[in-house]
Amino acid sequence: MNNKQNDKKISNAVIRRLPRYFRYLRELIRNDIMRISSRELSEKMNITASQIRQDLNCFGGFGQQGYGYNVKFLYSEISHILGVENGITAIIIGIGNMGKALVNNPLFEKRGIKIMGLFDTDPDVIGTTYGDLTVMDAKDAAGFIDENFIDIAVLTIPKSAAQDTFNELAETSILGIWNFSNAEIKCPENKDIKIENVHLGDSLMALCYEVAQTKESN
Amino acid sequence: MNNKQNDKKISNAVIRRLPRYFRYLRELIRNDIMRISSRELSEKMNITASQIRQDLNCFGGFGQQGYGYNVKFLYSEISHILGVENGITAIIIGIGNMGKALVNNPLFEKRGIKIMGLFDTDPDVIGTTYGDLTVMDAKDAAGFIDENFIDIAVLTIPKSAAQDTFNELAETSILGIWNFSNAEIKCPENKDIKIENVHLGDSLMALCYEVAQTKESN
Repeated sequence: MNNKQNDKKISNAVIRRLPRYFRYLRELIRNDIMRISSRELSEKMNITASQIRQDLNCFGGFGQQGYGYNVKFLYSEISHILGVENGITAIIIGIGNMGKALVNNPLFEKRGIKIMGLFDTDPDVIGTTYGDLTVMDAKDAAGFIDENFIDIAVLTIPKSAAQDTFNELAETSILGIWNFSNAEIKCPENKDIKIENVHLGDSLMALCYEVAQTKESN
Repeated sequence: MNNKQNDKKISNAVIRRLPRYFRYLRELIRNDIMRISSRELSEKMNITASQIRQDLNCFGGFGQQGYGYNVKFLYSEISHILGVENGITAIIIGIGNMGKALVNNPLFEKRGIKIMGLFDTDPDVIGTTYGDLTVMDAKDAAGFIDENFIDIAVLTIPKSAAQDTFNELAETSILGIWNFSNAEIKCPENKDIKIENVHLGDSLMALCYEVAQTKESN
Protein backbone atom coordinates (compact mmCIF):
# COMPACT_ATOMS: atom_id res chain seq x y z
CA MET A 1 0.00 0.00 0.00
CA ASN A 2 1.12 3.50 -0.74
CA ASN A 3 0.96 5.17 2.63
CA LYS A 4 2.89 8.15 3.82
CA GLN A 5 3.42 6.74 7.28
CA ASN A 6 5.37 3.88 5.82
CA ASP A 7 7.90 6.25 4.23
CA LYS A 8 9.00 7.57 7.56
CA LYS A 9 8.28 6.06 10.98
CA ILE A 10 6.79 8.80 13.14
CA SER A 11 8.14 8.90 16.68
CA ASN A 12 5.99 7.67 19.52
CA ALA A 13 6.10 11.08 21.22
CA VAL A 14 4.60 12.72 18.13
CA ILE A 15 1.97 9.99 17.80
CA ARG A 16 0.95 10.61 21.41
CA ARG A 17 0.37 14.29 20.59
CA LEU A 18 -1.55 13.68 17.35
CA PRO A 19 -4.93 12.93 19.01
CA ARG A 20 -4.77 16.37 20.62
CA TYR A 21 -4.15 17.99 17.23
CA PHE A 22 -7.00 15.89 15.89
CA ARG A 23 -9.37 17.23 18.56
CA TYR A 24 -8.36 20.86 18.08
CA LEU A 25 -8.56 20.66 14.32
CA ARG A 26 -12.03 19.07 14.51
CA GLU A 27 -13.12 21.96 16.72
CA LEU A 28 -11.73 24.46 14.19
CA ILE A 29 -13.58 22.77 11.32
CA ARG A 30 -16.79 22.89 13.36
CA ASN A 31 -16.25 26.62 13.76
CA ASP A 32 -15.57 27.05 10.03
CA ILE A 33 -11.95 28.04 10.55
CA MET A 34 -10.04 26.80 7.51
CA ARG A 35 -6.60 28.31 8.08
CA ILE A 36 -4.53 28.57 11.24
CA SER A 37 -1.02 29.71 12.01
CA SER A 38 1.31 27.72 14.24
CA ARG A 39 1.22 30.71 16.62
CA GLU A 40 -2.58 30.59 16.97
CA LEU A 41 -2.55 26.80 17.32
CA SER A 42 0.20 27.19 19.91
CA GLU A 43 -1.95 29.53 22.05
CA LYS A 44 -4.96 27.23 21.84
CA MET A 45 -3.06 24.05 22.57
CA ASN A 46 -0.46 25.33 25.00
CA ILE A 47 2.39 23.78 22.98
CA THR A 48 5.22 25.96 21.63
CA ALA A 49 4.84 27.08 18.02
CA SER A 50 8.21 25.57 17.16
CA GLN A 51 7.11 22.19 18.58
CA ILE A 52 3.96 22.38 16.47
CA ARG A 53 5.93 23.15 13.30
CA GLN A 54 8.26 20.27 14.07
CA ASP A 55 5.39 17.83 14.75
CA LEU A 56 3.40 18.74 11.66
CA ASN A 57 6.44 18.70 9.40
CA CYS A 58 6.89 15.03 10.37
CA PHE A 59 4.10 14.01 8.05
CA GLY A 60 4.31 16.70 5.40
CA GLY A 61 1.89 19.19 6.94
CA PHE A 62 3.94 22.20 5.88
CA GLY A 63 2.46 25.59 6.71
CA GLN A 64 2.93 28.50 4.35
CA GLN A 65 4.73 31.59 5.63
CA GLY A 66 2.16 34.26 6.50
CA TYR A 67 -0.66 31.99 5.41
CA GLY A 68 -0.69 29.21 7.97
CA TYR A 69 -1.91 25.63 7.81
CA ASN A 70 -4.81 24.25 5.82
CA VAL A 71 -6.99 22.92 8.64
CA LYS A 72 -8.93 20.35 6.59
CA PHE A 73 -5.78 18.98 4.98
CA LEU A 74 -4.07 18.59 8.35
CA TYR A 75 -7.18 16.99 9.82
CA SER A 76 -7.43 14.46 7.03
CA GLU A 77 -3.70 13.66 7.17
CA ILE A 78 -3.84 13.10 10.92
CA SER A 79 -7.02 11.00 10.62
CA HIS A 80 -5.22 8.92 8.04
CA ILE A 81 -2.09 8.47 10.15
CA LEU A 82 -4.13 7.56 13.21
CA GLY A 83 -6.05 4.98 11.22
CA VAL A 84 -9.40 6.71 11.71
CA GLU A 85 -10.53 5.85 8.18
CA ASN A 86 -9.35 2.28 8.34
CA GLY A 87 -12.69 0.86 9.45
CA ILE A 88 -11.42 -0.56 12.70
CA THR A 89 -13.74 -3.02 14.47
CA ALA A 90 -14.00 -3.64 18.18
CA ILE A 91 -15.77 -5.65 20.84
CA ILE A 92 -16.29 -4.81 24.51
CA ILE A 93 -15.74 -7.53 27.09
CA GLY A 94 -17.30 -6.72 30.48
CA ILE A 95 -20.62 -4.87 30.50
CA GLY A 96 -20.43 -3.45 34.02
CA ASN A 97 -20.61 0.27 34.66
CA MET A 98 -17.42 1.09 32.79
CA GLY A 99 -18.43 -1.13 29.87
CA LYS A 100 -21.82 0.59 29.73
CA ALA A 101 -20.16 4.01 29.86
CA LEU A 102 -18.23 3.00 26.73
CA VAL A 103 -21.03 1.23 24.81
CA ASN A 104 -23.02 4.44 24.63
CA ASN A 105 -20.03 6.69 24.21
CA PRO A 106 -19.64 8.51 20.89
CA LEU A 107 -15.87 8.23 21.11
CA PHE A 108 -15.76 5.09 18.99
CA GLU A 109 -18.00 6.33 16.20
CA LYS A 110 -16.18 9.67 16.06
CA ARG A 111 -12.99 7.78 15.31
CA GLY A 112 -14.48 5.42 12.76
CA ILE A 113 -14.49 2.40 15.07
CA LYS A 114 -17.42 0.03 14.86
CA ILE A 115 -18.47 -1.89 17.98
CA MET A 116 -19.41 -5.33 16.67
CA GLY A 117 -20.13 -7.26 19.86
CA LEU A 118 -20.60 -7.07 23.63
CA PHE A 119 -19.63 -9.86 26.03
CA ASP A 120 -20.05 -10.64 29.70
CA THR A 121 -19.86 -13.65 32.01
CA ASP A 122 -22.89 -12.76 34.16
CA PRO A 123 -26.02 -14.74 33.12
CA ASP A 124 -28.16 -11.75 34.17
CA VAL A 125 -26.27 -9.49 31.80
CA ILE A 126 -26.03 -11.91 28.85
CA GLY A 127 -29.02 -11.30 26.58
CA THR A 128 -29.56 -7.65 27.57
CA THR A 129 -29.46 -5.24 24.64
CA TYR A 130 -27.74 -1.92 23.94
CA GLY A 131 -28.91 -0.30 20.71
CA ASP A 132 -28.80 -3.12 18.17
CA LEU A 133 -26.31 -5.22 20.13
CA THR A 134 -27.19 -8.09 22.46
CA VAL A 135 -24.68 -9.07 25.14
CA MET A 136 -23.17 -12.49 24.40
CA ASP A 137 -21.48 -15.04 26.64
CA ALA A 138 -17.83 -14.09 27.21
CA LYS A 139 -16.74 -17.66 26.50
CA ASP A 140 -17.74 -17.09 22.86
CA ALA A 141 -15.62 -13.95 22.48
CA ALA A 142 -12.53 -15.69 21.07
CA GLY A 143 -14.51 -17.44 18.33
CA PHE A 144 -16.33 -14.21 17.50
CA ILE A 145 -13.04 -12.33 17.09
CA ASP A 146 -11.66 -14.83 14.59
CA GLU A 147 -14.91 -15.16 12.62
CA ASN A 148 -15.51 -11.42 12.36
CA PHE A 149 -11.91 -10.20 11.98
CA ILE A 150 -12.20 -8.01 15.08
CA ASP A 151 -9.28 -5.60 15.47
CA ILE A 152 -9.61 -4.36 19.05
CA ALA A 153 -10.97 -5.85 22.27
CA VAL A 154 -11.92 -3.39 24.99
CA LEU A 155 -11.43 -5.01 28.40
CA THR A 156 -13.71 -3.51 31.03
CA ILE A 157 -13.39 -6.46 33.38
CA PRO A 158 -12.16 -6.82 36.97
CA LYS A 159 -8.43 -6.90 37.55
CA SER A 160 -8.63 -10.50 38.75
CA ALA A 161 -10.01 -11.68 35.39
CA ALA A 162 -7.64 -9.68 33.20
CA GLN A 163 -4.70 -12.03 32.71
CA ASP A 164 -6.82 -15.12 31.99
CA THR A 165 -8.99 -13.21 29.53
CA PHE A 166 -5.92 -11.80 27.84
CA ASN A 167 -4.35 -15.25 27.55
CA GLU A 168 -7.46 -16.46 25.72
CA LEU A 169 -7.49 -13.43 23.43
CA ALA A 170 -3.80 -13.86 22.65
CA GLU A 171 -4.70 -17.11 20.86
CA THR A 172 -7.04 -15.25 18.45
CA SER A 173 -6.37 -12.89 15.54
CA ILE A 174 -6.92 -9.79 17.73
CA LEU A 175 -4.56 -6.89 16.99
CA GLY A 176 -5.09 -4.55 19.91
CA ILE A 177 -6.36 -4.42 23.50
CA TRP A 178 -7.74 -1.32 25.20
CA ASN A 179 -7.35 -2.36 28.80
CA PHE A 180 -9.43 -0.77 31.59
CA SER A 181 -8.93 -3.61 34.07
CA ASN A 182 -6.20 -1.82 36.05
CA ALA A 183 -4.05 -4.91 35.61
CA GLU A 184 -0.84 -4.21 33.73
CA ILE A 185 -1.07 -6.62 30.81
CA LYS A 186 2.05 -7.51 28.91
CA CYS A 187 2.09 -9.13 25.51
CA PRO A 188 4.09 -12.36 25.23
CA GLU A 189 7.17 -11.86 23.06
CA ASN A 190 5.99 -14.22 20.33
CA LYS A 191 2.79 -12.21 19.75
CA ASP A 192 2.24 -8.82 18.13
CA ILE A 193 -0.73 -7.45 20.04
CA LYS A 194 -0.75 -3.75 20.83
CA ILE A 195 -1.87 -3.04 24.37
CA GLU A 196 -3.04 0.30 25.66
CA ASN A 197 -3.36 0.14 29.45
CA VAL A 198 -5.68 2.84 30.79
CA HIS A 199 -4.85 3.81 34.36
CA LEU A 200 -7.44 6.35 35.42
CA GLY A 201 -5.94 6.29 38.89
CA ASP A 202 -2.66 7.73 37.60
CA SER A 203 -4.47 10.78 36.31
CA LEU A 204 -6.36 11.10 39.61
CA MET A 205 -3.13 10.92 41.59
CA ALA A 206 -1.46 13.60 39.52
CA LEU A 207 -4.44 15.82 40.33
CA CYS A 208 -4.28 14.90 44.02
CA TYR A 209 -0.65 15.92 44.09
CA GLU A 210 -1.47 19.37 42.73
CA VAL A 211 -4.42 19.76 45.10
CA ALA A 212 -2.31 18.67 48.09
CA GLN A 213 0.28 21.29 47.12
CA THR A 214 -2.40 23.99 47.07
CA LYS A 215 -3.78 22.85 50.43
CA GLU A 216 -0.35 23.06 52.01
CA SER A 217 0.37 26.52 50.70
CA ASN A 218 -2.99 27.86 51.96
CA MET B 1 4.50 22.54 57.65
CA ASN B 2 7.62 20.45 57.50
CA ASN B 3 7.18 18.63 54.24
CA LYS B 4 9.92 17.23 52.06
CA GLN B 5 8.24 18.24 48.84
CA ASN B 6 8.49 21.87 49.84
CA ASP B 7 12.26 21.68 50.08
CA LYS B 8 12.64 20.94 46.40
CA LYS B 9 9.98 21.29 43.73
CA ILE B 10 9.71 17.99 41.89
CA SER B 11 9.45 18.31 38.12
CA ASN B 12 6.13 17.64 36.44
CA ALA B 13 7.61 14.79 34.39
CA VAL B 14 8.65 12.97 37.57
CA ILE B 15 5.24 13.61 39.18
CA ARG B 16 3.60 12.05 36.13
CA ARG B 17 5.66 8.90 36.63
CA LEU B 18 5.11 8.64 40.40
CA PRO B 19 1.65 7.00 40.19
CA ARG B 20 3.24 4.17 38.20
CA TYR B 21 5.88 3.69 40.89
CA PHE B 22 3.07 3.81 43.45
CA ARG B 23 1.21 0.99 41.66
CA TYR B 24 4.27 -1.21 41.25
CA LEU B 25 5.39 -0.71 44.83
CA ARG B 26 1.90 -1.54 46.12
CA GLU B 27 2.04 -4.74 44.08
CA LEU B 28 5.44 -5.60 45.58
CA ILE B 29 4.16 -5.01 49.13
CA ARG B 30 1.18 -7.27 48.39
CA ASN B 31 3.64 -9.95 47.32
CA ASP B 32 5.74 -9.44 50.47
CA ILE B 33 8.73 -8.13 48.55
CA MET B 34 10.47 -5.64 50.83
CA ARG B 35 13.63 -4.85 48.86
CA ILE B 36 14.09 -4.20 45.17
CA SER B 37 17.01 -3.07 43.03
CA SER B 38 16.67 -0.40 40.36
CA ARG B 39 17.53 -3.12 37.84
CA GLU B 40 14.61 -5.33 38.90
CA LEU B 41 12.24 -2.36 39.05
CA SER B 42 13.49 -1.35 35.62
CA GLU B 43 12.58 -4.75 34.14
CA LYS B 44 9.13 -4.70 35.70
CA MET B 45 8.31 -1.13 34.74
CA ASN B 46 10.04 -0.89 31.40
CA ILE B 47 11.90 2.27 32.43
CA THR B 48 15.71 2.40 32.36
CA ALA B 49 17.43 1.73 35.69
CA SER B 50 19.25 5.05 35.45
CA GLN B 51 15.95 6.90 34.98
CA ILE B 52 14.58 5.13 38.06
CA ARG B 53 17.60 6.08 40.16
CA GLN B 54 17.27 9.68 38.98
CA ASP B 55 13.52 9.79 39.72
CA LEU B 56 13.78 8.24 43.17
CA ASN B 57 16.75 10.39 44.15
CA CYS B 58 14.52 13.43 43.58
CA PHE B 59 12.78 12.84 46.86
CA GLY B 60 15.48 11.18 48.87
CA GLY B 61 14.67 7.56 47.99
CA PHE B 62 18.31 6.54 47.84
CA GLY B 63 18.99 2.89 47.18
CA GLN B 64 21.94 1.14 48.78
CA GLN B 65 24.59 -0.38 46.56
CA GLY B 66 24.01 -4.13 46.35
CA TYR B 67 21.04 -3.89 48.69
CA GLY B 68 18.43 -1.99 46.69
CA TYR B 69 15.49 0.13 47.75
CA ASN B 70 13.33 -0.27 50.81
CA VAL B 71 9.93 -0.87 49.19
CA LYS B 72 7.77 0.26 52.12
CA PHE B 73 9.79 3.43 52.64
CA LEU B 74 9.55 4.34 48.96
CA TYR B 75 5.83 3.58 48.95
CA SER B 76 5.18 5.76 51.95
CA GLU B 77 7.29 8.62 50.58
CA ILE B 78 5.48 8.51 47.24
CA SER B 79 2.07 8.30 48.95
CA HIS B 80 3.04 11.35 50.94
CA ILE B 81 4.25 13.33 47.92
CA LEU B 82 1.14 12.45 45.94
CA GLY B 83 -1.06 13.60 48.80
CA VAL B 84 -2.60 10.16 49.35
CA GLU B 85 -2.65 10.63 53.12
CA ASN B 86 -3.98 14.15 52.99
CA GLY B 87 -7.62 13.16 53.39
CA ILE B 88 -8.78 14.62 50.10
CA THR B 89 -12.55 14.93 49.63
CA ALA B 90 -14.46 14.80 46.37
CA ILE B 91 -17.91 14.99 44.82
CA ILE B 92 -19.12 13.54 41.52
CA ILE B 93 -21.29 15.69 39.30
CA GLY B 94 -23.14 13.70 36.63
CA ILE B 95 -24.42 10.23 37.58
CA GLY B 96 -24.71 8.78 34.08
CA ASN B 97 -22.83 5.65 33.07
CA MET B 98 -19.39 7.16 33.54
CA GLY B 99 -20.38 8.67 36.89
CA LYS B 100 -21.71 5.29 38.02
CA ALA B 101 -18.52 3.59 36.86
CA LEU B 102 -16.61 5.94 39.17
CA VAL B 103 -18.97 5.89 42.19
CA ASN B 104 -18.38 2.20 42.69
CA ASN B 105 -14.75 2.27 41.68
CA PRO B 106 -12.18 1.48 44.38
CA LEU B 107 -9.74 3.94 42.83
CA PHE B 108 -10.79 6.75 45.16
CA GLU B 109 -10.61 4.79 48.37
CA LYS B 110 -7.26 3.26 47.42
CA ARG B 111 -5.84 6.76 47.18
CA GLY B 112 -7.40 8.04 50.40
CA ILE B 113 -10.05 10.13 48.66
CA LYS B 114 -13.50 10.26 50.23
CA ILE B 115 -16.53 10.76 47.96
CA MET B 116 -18.79 13.07 49.96
CA GLY B 117 -21.63 13.76 47.52
CA LEU B 118 -23.22 12.85 44.20
CA PHE B 119 -25.07 15.32 41.99
CA ASP B 120 -27.18 15.24 38.86
CA THR B 121 -29.69 17.45 37.04
CA ASP B 122 -32.10 14.64 36.05
CA PRO B 123 -35.14 14.47 38.41
CA ASP B 124 -35.26 10.69 37.84
CA VAL B 125 -31.68 10.33 39.05
CA ILE B 126 -31.89 12.76 41.99
CA GLY B 127 -32.82 10.77 45.08
CA THR B 128 -31.39 7.45 43.91
CA THR B 129 -28.80 5.98 46.25
CA TYR B 130 -25.34 4.46 45.86
CA GLY B 131 -24.04 2.91 49.06
CA ASP B 132 -24.71 5.53 51.72
CA LEU B 133 -24.90 8.43 49.27
CA THR B 134 -28.10 9.86 47.81
CA VAL B 135 -27.87 11.80 44.54
CA MET B 136 -28.59 15.50 45.12
CA ASP B 137 -29.71 18.24 42.78
CA ALA B 138 -26.76 19.60 40.78
CA LYS B 139 -27.86 23.16 41.50
CA ASP B 140 -26.90 22.59 45.14
CA ALA B 141 -23.37 21.42 44.32
CA ALA B 142 -21.70 24.83 44.72
CA GLY B 143 -23.16 25.38 48.19
CA PHE B 144 -22.21 21.84 49.21
CA ILE B 145 -18.59 22.38 48.15
CA ASP B 146 -18.22 25.51 50.27
CA GLU B 147 -20.02 24.08 53.30
CA ASN B 148 -18.10 20.79 53.29
CA PHE B 149 -14.66 22.03 52.19
CA ILE B 150 -14.68 19.72 49.15
CA ASP B 151 -11.30 19.52 47.41
CA ILE B 152 -12.08 17.89 44.08
CA ALA B 153 -15.12 17.83 41.79
CA VAL B 154 -15.32 14.97 39.30
CA LEU B 155 -17.19 16.12 36.19
CA THR B 156 -18.88 13.23 34.41
CA ILE B 157 -21.28 15.45 32.50
CA PRO B 158 -21.93 16.02 28.79
CA LYS B 159 -19.52 18.25 26.91
CA SER B 160 -22.28 20.81 26.33
CA ALA B 161 -22.75 21.35 30.07
CA ALA B 162 -19.07 21.47 30.98
CA GLN B 163 -18.19 25.15 30.66
CA ASP B 164 -21.30 26.41 32.51
CA THR B 165 -20.79 23.91 35.31
CA PHE B 166 -17.14 24.86 35.58
CA ASN B 167 -17.99 28.57 35.72
CA GLU B 168 -20.26 27.88 38.70
CA LEU B 169 -17.62 25.76 40.43
CA ALA B 170 -14.97 28.42 39.84
CA GLU B 171 -16.89 30.67 42.25
CA THR B 172 -16.57 28.11 45.07
CA SER B 173 -13.62 27.01 47.21
CA ILE B 174 -12.96 23.95 45.00
CA LEU B 175 -9.26 23.17 44.45
CA GLY B 176 -9.30 20.62 41.64
CA ILE B 177 -11.43 19.31 38.79
CA TRP B 178 -11.18 15.82 37.33
CA ASN B 179 -12.84 16.43 34.00
CA PHE B 180 -14.39 13.56 31.98
CA SER B 181 -16.63 15.79 29.88
CA ASN B 182 -14.35 15.76 26.82
CA ALA B 183 -14.52 19.55 26.83
CA GLU B 184 -11.12 21.15 27.32
CA ILE B 185 -11.67 23.29 30.40
CA LYS B 186 -9.27 26.11 31.13
CA CYS B 187 -8.99 27.84 34.46
CA PRO B 188 -9.40 31.63 34.40
CA GLU B 189 -6.11 33.37 35.20
CA ASN B 190 -7.35 34.87 38.47
CA LYS B 191 -8.22 31.42 39.91
CA ASP B 192 -5.99 28.65 41.16
CA ILE B 193 -7.99 25.53 40.32
CA LYS B 194 -6.06 22.50 39.12
CA ILE B 195 -7.72 20.81 36.18
CA GLU B 196 -7.03 17.29 34.97
CA ASN B 197 -8.71 16.75 31.62
CA VAL B 198 -9.24 13.06 30.87
CA HIS B 199 -9.38 12.34 27.16
CA LEU B 200 -10.08 8.65 26.80
CA GLY B 201 -10.31 9.15 23.05
CA ASP B 202 -6.65 10.15 22.87
CA SER B 203 -5.64 6.81 24.32
CA LEU B 204 -7.99 5.00 21.94
CA MET B 205 -6.52 6.82 18.95
CA ALA B 206 -2.96 5.97 19.91
CA LEU B 207 -4.04 2.32 19.97
CA CYS B 208 -5.82 2.67 16.62
CA TYR B 209 -2.64 4.03 15.11
CA GLU B 210 -0.68 0.99 16.22
CA VAL B 211 -3.40 -1.39 15.07
CA ALA B 212 -3.64 0.35 11.68
CA GLN B 213 0.14 -0.05 11.30
CA THR B 214 -0.14 -3.80 11.98
CA LYS B 215 -3.02 -4.14 9.52
CA GLU B 216 -1.03 -2.44 6.78
CA SER B 217 2.03 -4.58 7.31
CA ASN B 218 -0.03 -7.79 7.21
